Amino acid sequence: IKPHGYAVWEAIQRALDAKIKETGHQNAYFPLFIPKSFLAREAKHVEGFALECAVVTHAGLKRSDDPKKILEVTSPLEEELVIRPTSETIINDAFSRWVQSWRDLPVLVNQWANVVRWEMRTRLFLRTTEFLWQEGHTAHETAEEAEAEARKMLDVYRDLAENHLALSAVAGEKSAKERFAGADRTYTIEAMMQDRKALQAGTSHNLGQNFAKAFNIQFQDREGTLRHVWQTSWGVSTRLVGAVVMAHSDDRGLVLPPRLAPIHVAIVPIYKSDEERARVVETARKIAASLAGLAVKVDDREHLKPGAKYYEWEKKGVPVRVEIGPRDLAKNEVVVVRRDKAGKTPLSMEGLPDRLRALLDQIQSDLLAAQRAFREANTHAAGDPAAVKALFDGAGGFADGLWCGSGECEAKLNADTGATIRCMPFGAEPRKGSCALCGKPAQTPAIFARAY
Amino acid sequence: IKPHGYAVWEAIQRALDAKIKETGHQNAYFPLFIPKSFLAREAKHVEGFALECAVVTHAGLKRSDDPKKILEVTSPLEEELVIRPTSETIINDAFSRWVQSWRDLPVLVNQWANVVRWEMRTRLFLRTTEFLWQEGHTAHETAEEAEAEARKMLDVYRDLAENHLALSAVAGEKSAKERFAGADRTYTIEAMMQDRKALQAGTSHNLGQNFAKAFNIQFQDREGTLRHVWQTSWGVSTRLVGAVVMAHSDDRGLVLPPRLAPIHVAIVPIYKSDEERARVVETARKIAASLAGLAVKVDDREHLKPGAKYYEWEKKGVPVRVEIGPRDLAKNEVVVVRRDKAGKTPLSMEGLPDRLRALLDQIQSDLLAAQRAFREANTHAAGDPAAVKALFDGAGGFADGLWCGSGECEAKLNADTGATIRCMPFGAEPRKGSCALCGKPAQTPAIFARAY
Repeated sequence: IKPHGYAVWEAIQRALDAKIKETGHQNAYFPLFIPKSFLAREAKHVEGFALECAVVTHAGLKRSDDPKKILEVTSPLEEELVIRPTSETIINDAFSRWVQSWRDLPVLVNQWANVVRWEMRTRLFLRTTEFLWQEGHTAHETAEEAEAEARKMLDVYRDLAENHLALSAVAGEKSAKERFAGADRTYTIEAMMQDRKALQAGTSHNLGQNFAKAFNIQFQDREGTLRHVWQTSWGVSTRLVGAVVMAHSDDRGLVLPPRLAPIHVAIVPIYKSDEERARVVETARKIAASLAGLAVKVDDREHLKPGAKYYEWEKKGVPVRVEIGPRDLAKNEVVVVRRDKAGKTPLSMEGLPDRLRALLDQIQSDLLAAQRAFREANTHAAGDPAAVKALFDGAGGFADGLWCGSGECEAKLNADTGATIRCMPFGAEPRKGSCALCGKPAQTPAIFARAY
Repeated sequence: IKPHGYAVWEAIQRALDAKIKETGHQNAYFPLFIPKSFLAREAKHVEGFALECAVVTHAGLKRSDDPKKILEVTSPLEEELVIRPTSETIINDAFSRWVQSWRDLPVLVNQWANVVRWEMRTRLFLRTTEFLWQEGHTAHETAEEAEAEARKMLDVYRDLAENHLALSAVAGEKSAKERFAGADRTYTIEAMMQDRKALQAGTSHNLGQNFAKAFNIQFQDREGTLRHVWQTSWGVSTRLVGAVVMAHSDDRGLVLPPRLAPIHVAIVPIYKSDEERARVVETARKIAASLAGLAVKVDDREHLKPGAKYYEWEKKGVPVRVEIGPRDLAKNEVVVVRRDKAGKTPLSMEGLPDRLRALLDQIQSDLLAAQRAFREANTHAAGDPAAVKALFDGAGGFADGLWCGSGECEAKLNADTGATIRCMPFGAEPRKGSCALCGKPAQTPAIFARAY
């Protein structure tokens, strides 16, 4: 992940880390290596992840006698180690030592880490063998507390997506088939990309007592009885960088929401002579100095023409460009160009810092509004199988219909259209009707879509 | 790394990340997995790291027919992958694509990452198979620029150690034997722990053109000639958490420098009745609210006595404890206890926030002064082999003497005393004299010590 992309991830991390701490969690760090035997303890979990695991079998390389190999492995390990594909197993092994009494609960930890899931088909940012993420892991006294925690953290993700990534996502529950391996319930936020496909942008799991039983995490409750804890886990990853790219970019390159932009304002000086350059660059620097707290780039590179600079900052998604030349100076003005909309606007130097700040806020909210409008415009009520088929034969998007709850319908949807059940949205009340997939009686509202 | 220790690492990260960015570097992220063949390209580098590498040989586990094994590996990899022990090889492979012209230089990147070096004997925080660190990697047009960069970043580490960790370290150059595998010169800061042993707290390497040649990183210079870049790398790790623990702690537990402390002030209310509790806790909360920007814990847990709370916050190294009871309220006072010095001091509530802030600054500078004094008191001029032997037969510490530059002397020192040459300190001018290890003519000042 090159510096410009990584800076977007750092902006996401800063915003999310603050929210994770505000909600009472502490960061910690657990091992990259998971003993093979740990993985096997929770039956569904191992089924879900075993085939995707990178396995360390040896510690040490030595010169090979075969010159083509150069190096060969030495020192096989007694127990093979799995590179964490997710950390429930190794963290819950720790929790089984940390938790003894109800006074030790809740345990609310989070880690920022790399994980590895071996992928046959990778896709930049969206599906990579190694990715960066945060994973929260919690343990609670009661089932109700764990459920509330899982829902709370999904809402933190929804808030992050809306207010920082300018993504308007649908929040809801996953079907049994799409659940995290080892969870009782999985919640998700599903965003729509510009090609109308869904992108799962964050998930939160109510793990029930599945890992507590597999790892023997017990506590003495307030009455002195030994009980298993109730747990959650939740995570978002560098996939969010991909989501931002695919939701907002255009043919000229990235369009970054100001709250994630590594550079907020690029100032490009325009001049013909050295004398003009000196005056224009000096004013550009003064403007930059007046924008404390914003990341401002005065692009005074001499070997590039203004057009080449515009092209570069547009490609990199800088939200606002300021152009300033001798004629602007004479009028005490600058020319301001938004990345997300066409047109150039002259602005007076008087009160410019406040206007630029307001403009960045406006761009942030306009991007969210446009993203929401796009999702809504491409979400279609689908009352029966013909409507579902027509949507996915055509432009695609989110199909909003009822589902009877049958796994066969779910499998057939995927086989026929490539779509899956993305979620059963929160706030959509059950209503009597017929399944959009099979026509039988149904009452659960669901979103069907093709997805990344 | 449990939350309290991890919070110390986060404080170190925040301080250092700001300094790394201030000096013009950008964060990026490179892969955990290094193809085995990359490691082999730089001859000394592979020698230094091959035996310590964890090796991924397979991607995927499946149920085993042998019930004792449970899971067994499947899908061997075409090329085995090494878990990065450090990232020069994979990063320089990227640099060979990033760098074409002098206009692409300097490249100044840093990554925060986990690395793995297989260790036979591990030691909490100081020597662990997996550890967290930052590694800076840079490429420059000239040898002079690379040298200046390597020295600049070592000075960033010295500054971090002194002004955040309260560690007074000796900065200098490593001997050829102690150099990073693949470097032309390695610079180090060496701190003294309370048992008088040295701890290498940060290193910065001038890599010359060794990796540039191994990975073919070439650029067209200002005259149009193709040249290899000049490079540096530099890193500090979670070992610094261990350094803080071992430099400042006492028999009651941690003593944390205020700038790294996850909690700056713990307020312990003292009361006998519910009525007293209400009044005292209310005042404690008001004091906490008046300390904006500081991390304050009002310890109002009902199931613990004040003594148990003192014990816990002392063990965790909280720099300042505030005790407040009904008698203190009556006098409009609180009792303040420093973690680093004995004694209790009554302080008026008037102006308390400013006094507490000043006290934290005082503790920070007192810890550094004490650490410097301890190192200086335990650094002894050692003019000849007998003096060196006497020091390491006795209390140990830093021996400050001349070295003739011979590798045999260096090996004999280690064999005879367990000590090594920690560094040739900056600012210590060469002088004529005799080698403290062999007695022959010598002129290079060096520090000899046992080390972690």
